[in-house]
Amino acid sequence: MNAAVATSMLITETPEEGRELAIKLARSSIKALQPDAEVRKALRPVYANNASDLIAASQVIATEFATIAAANQYWRR
Amino acid sequence: MNAAVATSMLITETPEEGRELAIKLARSSIKALQPDAEVRKALRPVYANNASDLIAASQVIATEFATIAAANQYWRR
Amino acid sequence: MNAAVATSMLITETPEEGRELAIKLARSSIKALQPDAEVRKALRPVYANNASDLIAASQVIATEFATIAAANQYWRR
Amino acid sequence: MNAAVATSMLITETPEEGRELAIKLARSSIKALQPDAEVRKALRPVYANNASDLIAASQVIATEFATIAAANQYWRR
Amino acid sequence: MNAAVATSMLITETPEEGRELAIKLARSSIKALQPDAEVRKALRPVYANNASDLIAASQVIATEFATIAAANQYWRR
Amino acid sequence: MNAAVATSMLITETPEEGRELAIKLARSSIKALQPDAEVRKALRPVYANNASDLIAASQVIATEFATIAAANQYWRR
Repeated sequence: MNAAVATSMLITETPEEGRELAIKLARSSIKALQPDAEVRKALRPVYANNASDLIAASQVIATEFATIAAANQYWRR
Repeated sequence: MNAAVATSMLITETPEEGRELAIKLARSSIKALQPDAEVRKALRPVYANNASDLIAASQVIATEFATIAAANQYWRR
Repeated sequence: MNAAVATSMLITETPEEGRELAIKLARSSIKALQPDAEVRKALRPVYANNASDLIAASQVIATEFATIAAANQYWRR
Repeated sequence: MNAAVATSMLITETPEEGRELAIKLARSSIKALQPDAEVRKALRPVYANNASDLIAASQVIATEFATIAAANQYWRR
Repeated sequence: MNAAVATSMLITETPEEGRELAIKLARSSIKALQPDAEVRKALRPVYANNASDLIAASQVIATEFATIAAANQYWRR
Repeated sequence: MNAAVATSMLITETPEEGRELAIKLARSSIKALQPDAEVRKALRPVYANNASDLIAASQVIATEFATIAAANQYWRR
């Protein structure tokens, strides 16, 4: 892969890696908004056992994935 | 279909298959966020009988489908 | 209309038909998420008489329509 | 304006008309979801006096406007 | 700037002006949905002191800004 | 980098800087909606300890990032 492109954080080999990156980006936002790891740890069982929160979090992943997929030209290489 | 493209998870033969993939991707996010199958199983009747949750989940599917449709150039092959 | 394109579920003659398709797709997601027709029937008066739910459902339609409109190149034929 | 294009419901002369169309489309979804005019009339004071509902409704308008603006190539004629 | 383009409400000189326009458009939707200035004035302290409402309103601004940024070709002139 | 482009607020060297800008833009909306720093300071612990609010805020960041990524042509320079 062209080195200059490969250095871009958004570029992944496969859509599957793109999904993982989308989850990572979504989580990075939570971390930026709430830097305290203890608070994030305490909130995990709250959202992870709440259907509405899980759905809202999957919406964030879908939005991040849309950006990553476009960045990777939908892996149509 | 061009083999290289076909290997991309996002490529489907038809929009109908694209819808199914969108649902699969949405569910994969829930699984990534809540890996415990028992918890997911317990949450199913909660969201599946809640109008707001069903609507929010269909928003996730719509967002994932938008990405898949763009990846497939709207199946205008 | 070019036969190959016309076979794609996303292609409609007019924006008005595109709106109807967007509503149909939004409803197909609810059906995929909650296959039990009786439950869906019971939920209908819940969301159809709830302003927040109606607004959230219209958000889903707007997102599906965005995809359909792009698929139809905004009917600029 | 080219007659074929002008017949498309999505095409407007100005962004201002595009905004009005976005509001019209958002309302058309509510009407499709809740055909009963009396119910819609009863719900109006509910959402129109609720900050969260007004904000959610303005999100729908923003999403519809994004589609209309793209359809009109951002009125860069 | 080319006069025809400049007349389009969506065109701004800078991204900063684009942000202001996004906020203006978001507010114009609230006004269209609730024309009564007294009601809007009464609702202001409700949403302006509510974290969830402020976040939802910033989502509307982000969506409007996406449209304005595309209209201005991301100010890459 | 081409001076004219570089002056555009949306242009960043890397996706990482793009993420920071997305967070900055999201926060700028909150500031525009609620100019009182004391109120914003009081609201911080409310949303920063609330899973639903944190998820909703990360949705705003994802939407702003999508715009910034497109503005930077996904850093495929």
